[in-house]
Amino acid sequence: MALYVQKYGGTSVGSVERIQAVAEKVKGFRQQGHDVVVVVSAMSGETNRLIALAQDMQTQPDPREMDALVSTGEQVTIALLCMALKKIGVDARSYTGAQVRVLTDKYHTKARIQDIETERVRTDLDQGRVVVVAGFQGVDTDGNITTLGRGGSDTTGVALAAALKADECQIYTDVDGVYTTDPRVVEGARRLEKITFEEMLEMASLGSKVLQIRAVEFAGKYKVPLRVLSSFKDGPGTLITIEDDEAVEKPVISGIAFNRDEAKLTVMGVPDIPGVASRILGPISRANIEVDMIVQNIAADHTTDFTFTVHRNDYDKAQGVLQQVVKELGARESVGNNKIAKVSIVGVGMRSHAGVASKMFDALAAENINIQMISTSEIKVSVVIAEKYLELAVRALHSAFDLDASDTVSE
Amino acid sequence: MALYVQKYGGTSVGSVERIQAVAEKVKGFRQQGHDVVVVVSAMSGETNRLIALAQDMQTQPDPREMDALVSTGEQVTIALLCMALKKIGVDARSYTGAQVRVLTDKYHTKARIQDIETERVRTDLDQGRVVVVAGFQGVDTDGNITTLGRGGSDTTGVALAAALKADECQIYTDVDGVYTTDPRVVEGARRLEKITFEEMLEMASLGSKVLQIRAVEFAGKYKVPLRVLSSFKDGPGTLITIEDDEAVEKPVISGIAFNRDEAKLTVMGVPDIPGVASRILGPISRANIEVDMIVQNIAADHTTDFTFTVHRNDYDKAQGVLQQVVKELGARESVGNNKIAKVSIVGVGMRSHAGVASKMFDALAAENINIQMISTSEIKVSVVIAEKYLELAVRALHSAFDLDASDTVSE
Repeated sequence: MALYVQKYGGTSVGSVERIQAVAEKVKGFRQQGHDVVVVVSAMSGETNRLIALAQDMQTQPDPREMDALVSTGEQVTIALLCMALKKIGVDARSYTGAQVRVLTDKYHTKARIQDIETERVRTDLDQGRVVVVAGFQGVDTDGNITTLGRGGSDTTGVALAAALKADECQIYTDVDGVYTTDPRVVEGARRLEKITFEEMLEMASLGSKVLQIRAVEFAGKYKVPLRVLSSFKDGPGTLITIEDDEAVEKPVISGIAFNRDEAKLTVMGVPDIPGVASRILGPISRANIEVDMIVQNIAADHTTDFTFTVHRNDYDKAQGVLQQVVKELGARESVGNNKIAKVSIVGVGMRSHAGVASKMFDALAAENINIQMISTSEIKVSVVIAEKYLELAVRALHSAFDLDASDTVSE
Repeated sequence: MALYVQKYGGTSVGSVERIQAVAEKVKGFRQQGHDVVVVVSAMSGETNRLIALAQDMQTQPDPREMDALVSTGEQVTIALLCMALKKIGVDARSYTGAQVRVLTDKYHTKARIQDIETERVRTDLDQGRVVVVAGFQGVDTDGNITTLGRGGSDTTGVALAAALKADECQIYTDVDGVYTTDPRVVEGARRLEKITFEEMLEMASLGSKVLQIRAVEFAGKYKVPLRVLSSFKDGPGTLITIEDDEAVEKPVISGIAFNRDEAKLTVMGVPDIPGVASRILGPISRANIEVDMIVQNIAADHTTDFTFTVHRNDYDKAQGVLQQVVKELGARESVGNNKIAKVSIVGVGMRSHAGVASKMFDALAAENINIQMISTSEIKVSVVIAEKYLELAVRALHSAFDLDASDTVSE
């Protein structure tokens, strides 16, 4: 008899029929004797509809009013799901973020959870009810409605699971787990039974968009076992959990992440003096452009080439900023490329295995793929390559690290 | 420098453009130096959309969840209106019923307001803000969202005006005031400058659907001056207020109300013994049928004919109930007619003028209209006639009581 917090995203509750299917799934868990707290998002499309209405009113909608507006999306879903549960004989009760209450800071549209009261939820669970909570929203100390930013429903689920000391936080989504890489690119991509929070964070931030990064961080911090499952087909999904020291043999690499959304910019011939990095990246940051990878090399003539990547949408803007920077720094020129892709290998096993990076470079070299940038962390190695080689690179690495579907390396 | 509570209904906020028009109207009042609290309904169509979703889930949707669901309708409007106000430089802040807070009893979907806190609203007004409140909704002592039932936004407006001691509660709607009768029936129907709460109640309950009855009762009880105006064209509208003793000359009749939604049923040859009325109306009431007019006459043979009217939708059901009643009472038979209409003359002037009823009957007789039932109160006389004579009767009465457009009797 466990306590599960289950989160269903917008696609999983996207229609009357899908909400009814969620109700049936929840009923199944109740019939097995488990307690269930359900966290739901707005029905798919609803948040975009509301945002469009807001933008008809105000180009930059007032953040407090924006939160009051979009928070109605989940409120609709919680009420409908409770009706669907009652219809099939499952007692249920809905709560908005303010009703629970999910206390947040005052940063409208991107608030962070500070505390969750669990008294009302506990009382309902003790009385045999399913509790249905609106994800993505909370309330500040002055009673203003806040939202956690898009996708924040995952965070609500994890935070509730932590506050309630739930046995598992289950994130229902439209994929049936976390894969070694995107199955659309590599046919042999394999669902992982288990992955660590750290690996998941690297996978997520590198473009495998199964879970919200903040939710994974939160789950890791509070050691809430997190499971990604499909709303639409049965299966064990992927369990995201703390590192399991007992596992004798660990795969070196858990997965291959990749990202096509980046563009690369280089300032060439920069005088090699202190403070150059901040004089290049300061103006970029002030233009609200986020930087991902950064690489700097010293050339023979005591100048340096400074390269970084940005989101592809910011490419033109960043080029504009750099023209001014080149003048001010007395640099030679700035060049850029928006036909690049980033590929990363991720795995906690890297820590205890030498030679992982060189194995990666070998595999790419064997396919004649030139590496333009390299960046490493304790559990990942990322490279930037020409976008046209992306699929080839991912398949080569997937095979080189023995990730293709087979039982030999699965946990 | 007055404080106005302004209520805008679903049609008045039915689109982005209309919400922007409301914002402009509110800005005009602010520029004249007035304080404004705005109460809004859901955008027209929205509440019906939500109810349809609920009914897809549950034939009889759970009332608590229904309230959580439909209350999102007004929440969307308050946020959008605040954005529209801010866009044109008017500082504004939205409040849901729970945020204000509008405290109600626990009767979901038909709650009644018990108390309104005004502290936050006062603070915002003092800081020069327009306060925008979601109509139709409140919260109970346990923090559950409640609604006042359909059309309850008028009541929210009046209750807020009473709590804030506002100078006037202005109800903006799609008509430009209260008329002597329906202008679609009588071309010469005239907008009234003023009408008393009592007259308005009789007009409203008799089928002139400009204002919610409960809102008028509430306004009368707390002596909140109520004004009905058009959202779409300028004009003074109609002021609903307490009886003005200073007016020397009062029109005898303020207006003609009528109603096509009724059906008439008669139990004939009922033994004239005590308790007959309850033995007839008891079963009707238990079948959830509401009764409007009731008339009983004693016949020469010591039996009685008992006649009453019900909503036309309940006609068949009521006939079924009466078949059983006839058997149990040993009555002769039951007959009915659903091709009837009710016409009423309403006016506080009746109190001090004799012969109003007979003047009404004369006017109908002159048109050869047979009167089937009569019912009177202190400030109204209602008759039931064949439906086919309805328009003729209304026009005849409008003219007989000098209500046709002219300045001679207007206040």
